[in-house]
Amino acid sequence: MIIVIQCADRIGLVAGISGLLSQKQFNIISMQEHVDKGEQLFFMRIEADTTNGTAQLEKDLLQILPEGAIVKINPNTEKKVIVLVTKEYHCLADILVRNYFNTLGATVQCVIGNHATLQDICQRFDIPFYPVIFEGDNKRFEETLLEIISQYEYDYIVLAKFMRILSADFVGHFGKRIINIHHSFLPAFAGASPYRQAHERGVKLIGATAHYVTDQLDEGPIIAQQIIPANHSHTAQDMVKAGKEIETAVLAKALKLVFDDRVFVYKNKTVVLE
Amino acid sequence: MIIVIQCADRIGLVAGISGLLSQKQFNIISMQEHVDKGEQLFFMRIEADTTNGTAQLEKDLLQILPEGAIVKINPNTEKKVIVLVTKEYHCLADILVRNYFNTLGATVQCVIGNHATLQDICQRFDIPFYPVIFEGDNKRFEETLLEIISQYEYDYIVLAKFMRILSADFVGHFGKRIINIHHSFLPAFAGASPYRQAHERGVKLIGATAHYVTDQLDEGPIIAQQIIPANHSHTAQDMVKAGKEIETAVLAKALKLVFDDRVFVYKNKTVVLE
Amino acid sequence: MIIVIQCADRIGLVAGISGLLSQKQFNIISMQEHVDKGEQLFFMRIEADTTNGTAQLEKDLLQILPEGAIVKINPNTEKKVIVLVTKEYHCLADILVRNYFNTLGATVQCVIGNHATLQDICQRFDIPFYPVIFEGDNKRFEETLLEIISQYEYDYIVLAKFMRILSADFVGHFGKRIINIHHSFLPAFAGASPYRQAHERGVKLIGATAHYVTDQLDEGPIIAQQIIPANHSHTAQDMVKAGKEIETAVLAKALKLVFDDRVFVYKNKTVVLE
Amino acid sequence: MIIVIQCADRIGLVAGISGLLSQKQFNIISMQEHVDKGEQLFFMRIEADTTNGTAQLEKDLLQILPEGAIVKINPNTEKKVIVLVTKEYHCLADILVRNYFNTLGATVQCVIGNHATLQDICQRFDIPFYPVIFEGDNKRFEETLLEIISQYEYDYIVLAKFMRILSADFVGHFGKRIINIHHSFLPAFAGASPYRQAHERGVKLIGATAHYVTDQLDEGPIIAQQIIPANHSHTAQDMVKAGKEIETAVLAKALKLVFDDRVFVYKNKTVVLE
Repeated sequence: MIIVIQCADRIGLVAGISGLLSQKQFNIISMQEHVDKGEQLFFMRIEADTTNGTAQLEKDLLQILPEGAIVKINPNTEKKVIVLVTKEYHCLADILVRNYFNTLGATVQCVIGNHATLQDICQRFDIPFYPVIFEGDNKRFEETLLEIISQYEYDYIVLAKFMRILSADFVGHFGKRIINIHHSFLPAFAGASPYRQAHERGVKLIGATAHYVTDQLDEGPIIAQQIIPANHSHTAQDMVKAGKEIETAVLAKALKLVFDDRVFVYKNKTVVLE
Repeated sequence: MIIVIQCADRIGLVAGISGLLSQKQFNIISMQEHVDKGEQLFFMRIEADTTNGTAQLEKDLLQILPEGAIVKINPNTEKKVIVLVTKEYHCLADILVRNYFNTLGATVQCVIGNHATLQDICQRFDIPFYPVIFEGDNKRFEETLLEIISQYEYDYIVLAKFMRILSADFVGHFGKRIINIHHSFLPAFAGASPYRQAHERGVKLIGATAHYVTDQLDEGPIIAQQIIPANHSHTAQDMVKAGKEIETAVLAKALKLVFDDRVFVYKNKTVVLE
Repeated sequence: MIIVIQCADRIGLVAGISGLLSQKQFNIISMQEHVDKGEQLFFMRIEADTTNGTAQLEKDLLQILPEGAIVKINPNTEKKVIVLVTKEYHCLADILVRNYFNTLGATVQCVIGNHATLQDICQRFDIPFYPVIFEGDNKRFEETLLEIISQYEYDYIVLAKFMRILSADFVGHFGKRIINIHHSFLPAFAGASPYRQAHERGVKLIGATAHYVTDQLDEGPIIAQQIIPANHSHTAQDMVKAGKEIETAVLAKALKLVFDDRVFVYKNKTVVLE
Repeated sequence: MIIVIQCADRIGLVAGISGLLSQKQFNIISMQEHVDKGEQLFFMRIEADTTNGTAQLEKDLLQILPEGAIVKINPNTEKKVIVLVTKEYHCLADILVRNYFNTLGATVQCVIGNHATLQDICQRFDIPFYPVIFEGDNKRFEETLLEIISQYEYDYIVLAKFMRILSADFVGHFGKRIINIHHSFLPAFAGASPYRQAHERGVKLIGATAHYVTDQLDEGPIIAQQIIPANHSHTAQDMVKAGKEIETAVLAKALKLVFDDRVFVYKNKTVVLE
């Protein structure tokens, strides 16, 4: 069982929470907390074993926490996700393989592509694939996406190299539950063709950034970032190829953190309790 | 004020400790804990502000903790260290510079060298340097070291590329308070000439390991490790040069962790609460 | 077209080789060389465009090179590989995905497993899978492997987490054409259960090593190595999980280097011309 | 002896150059080349031993190279550098230590500070220090710098955390011979207070960039970049501290590359032949 708590900070929170759990005979396996002193915010993630019912726990916790506290008690069941893709396979294939071998920490419900390129790989893994080709009308395009999505239960939408910009309206439907992999070390090279930009700038490292999507393009809260070395011998095309490896790794890491309930979002930041 | 606690694990420890601190109106800035489930051991590091006296705190903590608990309450004063060196300057110079600019987190009391090579750099920083040249009698050599050391207060002995093996007897005087930088990625290439060994083996990474010294040579608890890439174009001599950079960085990192009271030692391991 | 040359070193080799190519109007795209001064060995990799025939080139090169020179002229066709596995999927799935999307730089001819666990994933990618279960007689077991292998053309055998030790006799059939991924930072933790060993030793980094297989177990020439951070919070089981990510990445990198004709083997080392 | 060549690309360059060296009985220790296909530019670095005179070599090379070729033949003597600083010590101290132990690959001629803070550390190493305090008139300030600089021989000016912006006019005096360490992973967070910016953006990595200074602020050709992990627990102040370690390492690496004649500059890029 995972308990996540986000609330205003005040003295005695840890004592109160751990006292309550101790009194209820929960066995705490791990407990991590963070306080943002500037914002006076408190974040906590608790992993606990229990043979007792948990129905009452949320209520009891809210009673001892400051007003406005957010408490989520997640049984150790898998998250459900819907994946959006375009033509590039690397992130999707990694997700499909982990899903197939039950190591994703989530279940892929379906894949939606704005090209049909990746239909075959999905079918090989028995995952429903919906081609939704953009035909000039973005409103209609996004409505079709929403119709498909609405047929499924889901916790998160994953943009696994989905190369169309989604409208603020669309993004607004999902709160901070859309996760994107951006092919640069944000905020460097935001926007289009980041590898071409990086190549022209002669950078010595290229990176990738996994982040929540907000209506501010490429500006959402960062979950994970990583880099690999680059040098003068890389063409822009080489950087694209090398970038795919790091994009795959960074998205995989970010998804694992999110699916394990380790990522808290506030303002334009994340707290990641590892 | 830093509070470190190490004791047998049991339910309710976090609640008890944080309850006590809360009741005494300590403002907890950060609190990290770790439980080794296999060994049933509990480790905690607390950083707290207080305007109240702390004289009573240790006593009160011991009363609510399991028997045999270790509690240390460190005021935010600097540790004191004695540094042992041979001829290589890189780790020592890094320590002297940080010491001079008050960013080491400790005060260097003196430097002892089994060669006189590094006397001048110590004098430039007004640090007492004692040359203790080995003259064939190890017992006598170590007694001379002990005599010098005994003239100073110290919390830790740092072996900053001290290339003589110290006897179990000598090491036994200091408990786990001697810190060494080993020029390999332990346990690979333990013993003499690790870079030559690494070169012959054609490794693609070379590393360094900072560890506590025990009477088991190169076997003490590891504090920090790091690596840098190597390849076929490196001669053994190039690896030595490259290794110095990583040795300097790893020892600096390990010392910072130790001086910040973040490192707990048990069995042949460390818990590092960052 | 890739030209690889390995021979005794002497003055004028680069001039002679590049002179010959220039005279034959080959357009050199890239040229890398390395000289092992200690061993007096010369290594060169040339990537060249040509519209002329290459039939004569090897002969002409051998004429200007020292006796005993090895020259290979590889047209840009894909290598062929046979993959051996046990139960763990991560390396195999990565290879199958890259093979399916034509980015492996090689064609997977078939997969042989000493367990049937990974049959289904192979079938999903239309790759022949042969289960060869060990039944107590290693000679017979290896003979069955050889029979299957002999039905295919291949350039390399890849051990993608194949957890049985192959006899010197078996290995001897293949020269240095078997590539293995070892789940540790060799030479640390060679042999069985490296993650358990690493956990007990309290290491702060765990690694993986891709290497050619020789009859000296875990002692073959290293192609690539990489590490990821570890700490006290990792159980041995966590280290296994984390290790899989780095194993997958290191094997993928090593295969790419080998399939691109960038790896030269001599003594117990490799030269990797990137 | 190091020979560096930069010229228009054409077929036969390597053959011509290595033929010439071979004919003159130079023993080539290492030779690296790079061709920028897009720009049709050829770069080469040769390390050679010779007992013969080299006076004629430059002339002979220019005769066989395309018009406009740049050839530099550097005897293995140390470069001379002048260092500009403000108040932060970390990069300067690293340079002074390496200079003192003859491992910088260059000789520090003098240090100029726009604050007097670092005078004492320079004096401890017997390096002339000139305090040049800005008093409201930038033209006058830069003239004073130029006067001091003109008293010394120098190959490079190193800005080791020099926190004033230099005018295009000043920069113009030095061609691409001023090297700066920028406290961010350029082009992310160019300009002022990069760590505050990075903290607000919630990045998971912070970096440093060593680059040549041009009149385009923070836009000059990049020599080296590196990053270290960051997370939510870092305050902006923690990031500054952590950043100092990586700034020191990146500047040290960049200087080593430049002093070894490994860095070629063209357009807004570098080729680094390692």
